[in-house]
Amino acid sequence: MEKFDIAVVGAGPGGYVAAIRAAQLGFKTVVVERAELGGVCLNWGCIPTKALLKSAQVYNYLSHLADYGLALCDTSSGENVKVVPVPQTEKIVERERNVAAAMSRGIEYLFRKNGITLVKGNARVKARGLLEVVVQSGDNMEIGASHIILATGSRAASLPFAPIDGERIISYREALVPEKLPESLVVIGSGAIGCEMAFFYNSMGTKVTLIEYLDRILPLEDADVSAQLSRSFRKAGMKVLVSAAVTQVEKSAQGCRVRVRTGKGEEVIEAEQVLSAVGVVPNTENLGLENLGIELVKGKVPVDEYYRTKVEGIYAIGDIIATPALAHVASAEAVAAVEKIAGLEVEPLDYSNVPGAVYTSPEAASVGLTEQQAKEAGFDYKVGKFPFTASGKATASGERDGFVKLISDAASGKLLGAHLVGANVTEMISGIVLARKLGAGVRDIVKTIYPHPTMSEAIMGAAEVICGECIHL
Amino acid sequence: MEKFDIAVVGAGPGGYVAAIRAAQLGFKTVVVERAELGGVCLNWGCIPTKALLKSAQVYNYLSHLADYGLALCDTSSGENVKVVPVPQTEKIVERERNVAAAMSRGIEYLFRKNGITLVKGNARVKARGLLEVVVQSGDNMEIGASHIILATGSRAASLPFAPIDGERIISYREALVPEKLPESLVVIGSGAIGCEMAFFYNSMGTKVTLIEYLDRILPLEDADVSAQLSRSFRKAGMKVLVSAAVTQVEKSAQGCRVRVRTGKGEEVIEAEQVLSAVGVVPNTENLGLENLGIELVKGKVPVDEYYRTKVEGIYAIGDIIATPALAHVASAEAVAAVEKIAGLEVEPLDYSNVPGAVYTSPEAASVGLTEQQAKEAGFDYKVGKFPFTASGKATASGERDGFVKLISDAASGKLLGAHLVGANVTEMISGIVLARKLGAGVRDIVKTIYPHPTMSEAIMGAAEVICGECIHL
Repeated sequence: MEKFDIAVVGAGPGGYVAAIRAAQLGFKTVVVERAELGGVCLNWGCIPTKALLKSAQVYNYLSHLADYGLALCDTSSGENVKVVPVPQTEKIVERERNVAAAMSRGIEYLFRKNGITLVKGNARVKARGLLEVVVQSGDNMEIGASHIILATGSRAASLPFAPIDGERIISYREALVPEKLPESLVVIGSGAIGCEMAFFYNSMGTKVTLIEYLDRILPLEDADVSAQLSRSFRKAGMKVLVSAAVTQVEKSAQGCRVRVRTGKGEEVIEAEQVLSAVGVVPNTENLGLENLGIELVKGKVPVDEYYRTKVEGIYAIGDIIATPALAHVASAEAVAAVEKIAGLEVEPLDYSNVPGAVYTSPEAASVGLTEQQAKEAGFDYKVGKFPFTASGKATASGERDGFVKLISDAASGKLLGAHLVGANVTEMISGIVLARKLGAGVRDIVKTIYPHPTMSEAIMGAAEVICGECIHL
Repeated sequence: MEKFDIAVVGAGPGGYVAAIRAAQLGFKTVVVERAELGGVCLNWGCIPTKALLKSAQVYNYLSHLADYGLALCDTSSGENVKVVPVPQTEKIVERERNVAAAMSRGIEYLFRKNGITLVKGNARVKARGLLEVVVQSGDNMEIGASHIILATGSRAASLPFAPIDGERIISYREALVPEKLPESLVVIGSGAIGCEMAFFYNSMGTKVTLIEYLDRILPLEDADVSAQLSRSFRKAGMKVLVSAAVTQVEKSAQGCRVRVRTGKGEEVIEAEQVLSAVGVVPNTENLGLENLGIELVKGKVPVDEYYRTKVEGIYAIGDIIATPALAHVASAEAVAAVEKIAGLEVEPLDYSNVPGAVYTSPEAASVGLTEQQAKEAGFDYKVGKFPFTASGKATASGERDGFVKLISDAASGKLLGAHLVGANVTEMISGIVLARKLGAGVRDIVKTIYPHPTMSEAIMGAAEVICGECIHL
C-alpha cells in the first residue's frame, strides 16, 4: 500500500485546488476521482454554462443587428436579405463540450506538472489515515494518507413528486447537452442555475416558464436585483411565476403537465420538458463517515474553521460542508485547509465577503448584505444606487439595463454590501470584494479615479449618491 | 453684468463636472461653452468611439458565427445560406451620433437640475474676476465671477507636412462621421485614439496600415501590452509599422501617398485617406491669458496642486495643464479645484494612480508603472503574469487573447503597476486602482475570494504567480 501525506477525495474546484496547493507545499499527494477532473463546476456547471451563454449572447446580437447599424447581404444577389439566425444545437453543445474537455485536460496537465498521483475510482474512508478505493476495473486498492481531505461536492436535488428521469424531467446535466432544443421548458427554481438555464433556452427560442416558490426570482439576492432580472426576463419574452408552488408534474406523451398553485389559483402548464433546478444535495453517501463516527448535521459534514472534522487527519471542504456551495468558496477552503496542515499562518475565511455571480443578460453580481439583511441586522445604513441608463459606456454599448447599488454603514461609511446588475458586472464585483477586504469606505471609492468611459464608473456614482455628491444624476 | 461665484469656461468632462460640483456646494455658477455640452470626450471622443467599437464588436461576431454554433437561414427556402454581414455606415454613424446627442442632452438636464447658467459662446478672461463672451449671435457680454475655471480642452494635432483638411487627411472628428468607409486608411500614430480608430476601420473591412514612430504601438503602455496588441491587430489583418517615420503625405486624385522611412528603407503606402492621430494640442489661444500675465510652459497653463494659476481666482484643469490628457483626470481635477475653492479638505490627486484604457479587441487597461519604468526607477520588483489562455471564463467566451501582468515591490508586495489586455479588462482595472489607493499588496489579492468563473480571477492568478503559489499555471 502506497502512503501519501495528503489524499484528496474528489477533483472538483475544492479537491483539485487542494491537491495542487498541497503539492506546491511539498506534500506527497494523491487524488481519487470517480468521474471527470474538474468536477461538476468544470464539466457540468460553471464553465460549460458560460460557453452556452456566450452562444446565447452572440445569438441575441444577431436578432438586433439593425441596432448596431449592421445588415446581412446575400452573396449571390448582392442584396440585403432577411434571414433568420438559427442555433445549431449540435454545434453549440459540441463547442461547450470541447471547452469543458479542454479545461479538464488542463487540470490533468497541472496534476502531472505538480507530481500529483491520480486514481480513478470511488473512495471511502476505512479508518483514520486509510482510504479504500474501488478503481474503475472493479478492483479494490488501499491508500494510506496522514491527511484525508473530503471534497466530493454535490449533485442536483429532486422534488419528491418530480424525480429527475433525464428525459422529460431533467437536471442541469441534461440541460447542458440537449439533442435538440425543446419547444417549451418549465424551469422549477430560480437560483443562479435556474435563471441561467431559463435565460439560455429562452434566448434560443424555447418557450420558457420560470417558476419560483418564494416571492421573487433569485431570492437570495437583493430585492432590487430580483426586480430588475424579472423585468429583463419578461422583456425577453420569458414567463416568470413567483410565489408559485409546483404541486404536481405529470408526464404525458407530448411532455409534461406542471400543476402550479399561485395567489391567483391553480394553473396547469404544458411543456416539452421540465428542468428541476431546486438546489443541490451534498455527496456524503458511501464516504465511510460512519466508520469514523462522523455524524452529519443537516446533511453536511461538521468542520471547524480550518475544515477539520472531529476526527484528526480528516478534513472536509466545499459543497459537503455548511458553507455556500460555490466553486470559489471550495477553492478558498482548499487552500486554507492545506496551508493549515502545512503549519502556515492561516486566517479563517471571511464568509461575509464572498461574491456571487449570475451570468444571464443582464448579469448579476453581489457581495455582502442585501438591504433587507442590513435592515434586519439593525444597521443604520445608507443606500446609493446608480442606474446604467445614466452611464455613457452603457449607452454607447446599448446595454443600459441595470444598476450599481451600494449599501454602507451610515456612521463609518464602510461597505456593507454591493449589488450589481448589468453587462459585465460579474467582472466588476471582485474590485469591490478586494476593497471590502481592505476596509474600504464609500469616500475611498468617491476619491478613486475610475477610467472613463466604463460601466465601472457607476460604482463611483453609487458611492457619490451615498455621499450626497453624485455628479451624473 | 451678472455676477457669479464660479464661472467655468468649457463644458467638457472637466468643465461640466466642475460646474455641477460647484452648484452642489451652493455656488452660483455659470458655464460658457462654444460648442456641444460634454466637450470632445462626449461628442467627438470617448463616448462616440465606444459606440462605433460596439458596432465593430457585433460585426466581428457575425464573421465568426460558426465558432458559437450559430448559422443563418434563408426565411423563404428554409435553408442555411451563406450571407455576408454588411456594415451600414450611415446607420452606424447615426447610432453613434444619437448616443453622443443623448449624453449631451443629459448634461443639459443636469445643468438645469443644478441651476447652472449656460452661456453659448467664446469666452476670454478680460481681467481678474471678469469674462468677456462673444455669444453666438455675435454680441458681446461680460460675466463677473469670483473664481474662473479654465477647462477648454484640446484639439487634434497636425503634422506640419500633413495638415488636416478633413477630406483626405482627417482627424478623429471626421473619422467618427464617415460618409462611406474608405477602401484603405493609413493611421499615423498609435496612441489610444489611433489604435481604436485603426481597429474600428480594420474590423469594418477597410485596409488599414497603422504607423508608429516609436518602436512599438501604444508606446506609453507596458511593452508586453504593445506586443499583444500588435499580435492581435496583425492577426486581424491590419498592417502595423513601427519605428516608422512618415516623411511626406502627398495628396493624389485617388487619395494619399504616404512616404514612410523604416529600418528596411523607404516605403510608399497608397491609401484613400490618412487619419492623423499624433496627439492633441491644448486650446489655450484667445483665452486672455496674456491679460493676466500668465505665460504657458511647454504650451500648458502652469498651476499648483489645487489647479490655481499664479493669478488669484483663476484656475485651470484638464487638457490645458501638464497632467495626463484624459477625461477622468479632468473630472477629478474639476472636483478637487472646486472643493478647494469651497474650503473643503482636499487631498491632492495621486497621478501615479490614474488608469488608462484602450477599447480595441482585445482591450487594454493599465495603472501605475510599466515594468520598464519600475526597472528605471531602481525598484527591486517582481512580475506576475497570468495569460487568459489559462482562464476558464476566457475559454468559455472564446476570448483567450491577453493577460494580466502585475508588478509589485519585492520587499513590501505593494502593487507598483498593473497591465491588462483582454476582453472587458477596461471594467476590471478600477478594482486595482481602488485597491492601490487602499495600499493593497499582492497577498491581499491572493487572499481575496474572486468569483468563479470570471476573467478577473486572472488578477488573483497573477498575484499568486508573484507569491510563487499559482494554482492554475
